Amino acid sequence: MKFGIVIFPGKTLQDLANSYRKRYDPHYSLIPPHITLKAPFEANEDEAKTLANKLEDISKRFSPLHIHIPKFSSFHPVNNVIYFKVEPSTEMTDLHEAIDALGYGEATEYSFVPHITLGQRLSDDEHSDVFGSLKMQKMNHDEYVDRFHLLYQLENGSWTVFETFRLGKE
Amino acid sequence: MKFGIVIFPGKTLQDLANSYRKRYDPHYSLIPPHITLKAPFEANEDEAKTLANKLEDISKRFSPLHIHIPKFSSFHPVNNVIYFKVEPSTEMTDLHEAIDALGYGEATEYSFVPHITLGQRLSDDEHSDVFGSLKMQKMNHDEYVDRFHLLYQLENGSWTVFETFRLGKE
Repeated sequence: MKFGIVIFPGKTLQDLANSYRKRYDPHYSLIPPHITLKAPFEANEDEAKTLANKLEDISKRFSPLHIHIPKFSSFHPVNNVIYFKVEPSTEMTDLHEAIDALGYGEATEYSFVPHITLGQRLSDDEHSDVFGSLKMQKMNHDEYVDRFHLLYQLENGSWTVFETFRLGKE
Repeated sequence: MKFGIVIFPGKTLQDLANSYRKRYDPHYSLIPPHITLKAPFEANEDEAKTLANKLEDISKRFSPLHIHIPKFSSFHPVNNVIYFKVEPSTEMTDLHEAIDALGYGEATEYSFVPHITLGQRLSDDEHSDVFGSLKMQKMNHDEYVDRFHLLYQLENGSWTVFETFRLGKE
């Protein structure tokens, strides 16, 4: 089974993200808007239960995370992904590293660039048009998130939540 | 905001349910296959946090639930919903009643008929064809579920998990 670890931002930001994803993200119907903390990895159900216990331990060590979104951004020319940039706070990077250090799946090869994907698999022309328009728009959003989720993927590609972890619960 | 409370069954059963939902359920892309414990109701975020705490208290009082699915069934002629019948165990009915007794949304007017929807909004002819074929198929599935989820609905109609509650955790 394929598992992943994500943060779902608040409803307001999810609704805004979906207004773009509906048109530009083929994953629109497979998962709600999210910040990926750990990219998809293979594990069986027993491993997932052990992982869930470890994630619960980690969650107790962290306080709710401040999320600041200063602008639209793009991974172009690496790939044509358009996203809400999430200002990488020390706490979020620490949480990412604590999860990575558990050793599930492959260690992250790239530096952690937290983001909420709005569009992907766009042609060069489409990317240029859409991002050219979005980057002119003002975006400045702040919120706190107090939880993250362990998900697993169904055969149709969609994701189901396995467990929720509250940050700083105790 | 609209909230709901559901059980997601295991991946095997979700994949099987989705093989039908893909064709027959317009909600296919909005939520994974599920057993509804509490129908959608309005609440604000503060109320939801209070509710989450109450649900956590309830979850500690229950053990993992046995789910037995003996057959395909239908709500026809009340409506053209085709579903996996879930044999109502005392424990699941008790959990439903404990949640109902919290007083969020409207109290359930009907008796609790736990089920996993496979098709809905079918025409009479479509319902007759599809259910006529499905009810001839053998279905006999058993599993234990050890968690349920509080969800909220986004503007596009899809559902995001707010929190997970493990049954019999402590």
